[in-house]
Amino acid sequence: MAALTLALDAMGGDLGPSIVIDALDDALTTFPQHHFIVVGDEAELLPLLRSKQLEQHPRVTLKYASQTVSMSDKPGYSLRAKPDSSMRVALELLASEEAAACVSAGNTGALMTKAYFSLKTLPGVLRPALMSAIPQASGKSAFLLDLGANPVCDSDTLFQFGLMGSVAAREVLGIEQPRIALLNMGEEDIKGNDVVKSTAQLFQQSKSLNYIGFIEGDDLFADKADVIVCDGFVGNIALKSCEGLAELLLNNIRSNINAHWLTRWFVKLFYHRLQRSWDWLKPDHYNGASLIGLRGVVIKSHGDADGKAFFSAIKQAVEETQQDLPTRIRDQVEKVLLEQH
Amino acid sequence: MAALTLALDAMGGDLGPSIVIDALDDALTTFPQHHFIVVGDEAELLPLLRSKQLEQHPRVTLKYASQTVSMSDKPGYSLRAKPDSSMRVALELLASEEAAACVSAGNTGALMTKAYFSLKTLPGVLRPALMSAIPQASGKSAFLLDLGANPVCDSDTLFQFGLMGSVAAREVLGIEQPRIALLNMGEEDIKGNDVVKSTAQLFQQSKSLNYIGFIEGDDLFADKADVIVCDGFVGNIALKSCEGLAELLLNNIRSNINAHWLTRWFVKLFYHRLQRSWDWLKPDHYNGASLIGLRGVVIKSHGDADGKAFFSAIKQAVEETQQDLPTRIRDQVEKVLLEQH
Repeated sequence: MAALTLALDAMGGDLGPSIVIDALDDALTTFPQHHFIVVGDEAELLPLLRSKQLEQHPRVTLKYASQTVSMSDKPGYSLRAKPDSSMRVALELLASEEAAACVSAGNTGALMTKAYFSLKTLPGVLRPALMSAIPQASGKSAFLLDLGANPVCDSDTLFQFGLMGSVAAREVLGIEQPRIALLNMGEEDIKGNDVVKSTAQLFQQSKSLNYIGFIEGDDLFADKADVIVCDGFVGNIALKSCEGLAELLLNNIRSNINAHWLTRWFVKLFYHRLQRSWDWLKPDHYNGASLIGLRGVVIKSHGDADGKAFFSAIKQAVEETQQDLPTRIRDQVEKVLLEQH
Repeated sequence: MAALTLALDAMGGDLGPSIVIDALDDALTTFPQHHFIVVGDEAELLPLLRSKQLEQHPRVTLKYASQTVSMSDKPGYSLRAKPDSSMRVALELLASEEAAACVSAGNTGALMTKAYFSLKTLPGVLRPALMSAIPQASGKSAFLLDLGANPVCDSDTLFQFGLMGSVAAREVLGIEQPRIALLNMGEEDIKGNDVVKSTAQLFQQSKSLNYIGFIEGDDLFADKADVIVCDGFVGNIALKSCEGLAELLLNNIRSNINAHWLTRWFVKLFYHRLQRSWDWLKPDHYNGASLIGLRGVVIKSHGDADGKAFFSAIKQAVEETQQDLPTRIRDQVEKVLLEQH
């Protein structure tokens, strides 16, 4: 396996740079051939690296960046006012080909804007999309996109999201002919808005994609499709609503259980078994979200990711880079564009 | 309390007319002053009424309708081809003022279309909306609308949804100054699409509404708002995604529990306690959805509602009728329209 170099924005997450250094420590062991460039404030990072005895590690480089994008920074503002942010510097390492992938737990809007400006989209790709794996009833995963990079999409853009998601499902999930579905408010042809209906026509006309039709929200986790396509407004709200419900359910079960001594005792005994039911279902935690369609691999880790979750995002960056996902997407987009004209 | 007459579409649900008759039996006891017109196929309904000794009940009228709208009928088709459907006949009882409210577990699209044509919207109301109560972390309820009556909405329509939801929250939930929020993919002003942004401006300009701003999907159940507004495409997908997740979680917990004899034994013992965590969270089951903005009270019960759930929908119809929700909405819409001009 070829040695890769990954850039880690160490300053982005809610929990500070220590979680990135924890994840780095794991990554150095798990991937004994890869290099990591840790980008951020030296004064903060050096003591953390020292505490893990990583400051002289041959596969770790520290790259200084004087600024940090905060969670409340607006994308345009952070682009103009923070040219030396850890996020920007990490992305520029991809643009200059010093690194093959970038992982950040920072502000999603800023990351999308900066990545778009630093890296540009692949030839033929209209818009990058934010994509995440979501768990399925079968135990497998499906890809859902877009999750918020594009609040408004036309049908050509949604069609490309299906195409890019399909390439990712093949390369990353190993599915030969990924089933592509459009998220809609009904399964019948007449349902939904004009954009969804005309996107369905584009999919139906395509020879190389395995389009299976509309699916509804309640089938998001039913293993009916491998790639589920929607605009960023809908995708963001659908996924976050599910997160909100999962939290509510967990709290509610907890309080029903805590109300009786026998149930409390039971839960102590079987905590790991119950916990397993939940861990599996935190879409943003068990994995990072990929910003696909760009000339490089960019992974957005959840803002409140801990070291383990940030490590998951690094692992995902390694996988996408090893599969050379950007090149695969570029080739497939080119092929389908030729098919259409 | 004044005696009301309610029309029940007995043929609509997935589980057949028997669940409607079960619910009717409960309703006759719970509401000893109200009358019920049961609409549907006499040959099917008479034996069911007889089995409950209701065929001669002084507060039950059987109204024959020769057709049934199926779950797969397209709204336009059912409107043209089934003029004597139980759903249509039940709605016409509202139009002729023989009944004050209608409850149906039938095809949502057909019900919306038929209700719109039979009853028309209230003066000044642009579009009817499908609204449901959703549970909140605090144990209270909030109203979410639209859930699918309007896949595409302009900002005037969304503004009116907030207004109508606010009247319903005051009259039905008893909240003095209901907090209205717009569902969006971020809380900042710059987030979302143009319609959401211009709707926010309309709310901000309004003097009589308690608008609190944008909320994200993960706050849908966090008791941050009493009325949550979105277009029918987003609302339908958000609510159904949550239903899908709840089902997945339930199955997953069940299989983790079933994997060990001690947990199986435990669950048998504490089933009611665990069950409580779930029952509370089935938005479409613990209540019907209201089609508001029309000249009459129309409640859509879930298609697979059992007798208990259908009874909930009847109860909701009684409450909305007693509060005279259509008149309250008409007055408030008139007031705000005058305020705007």
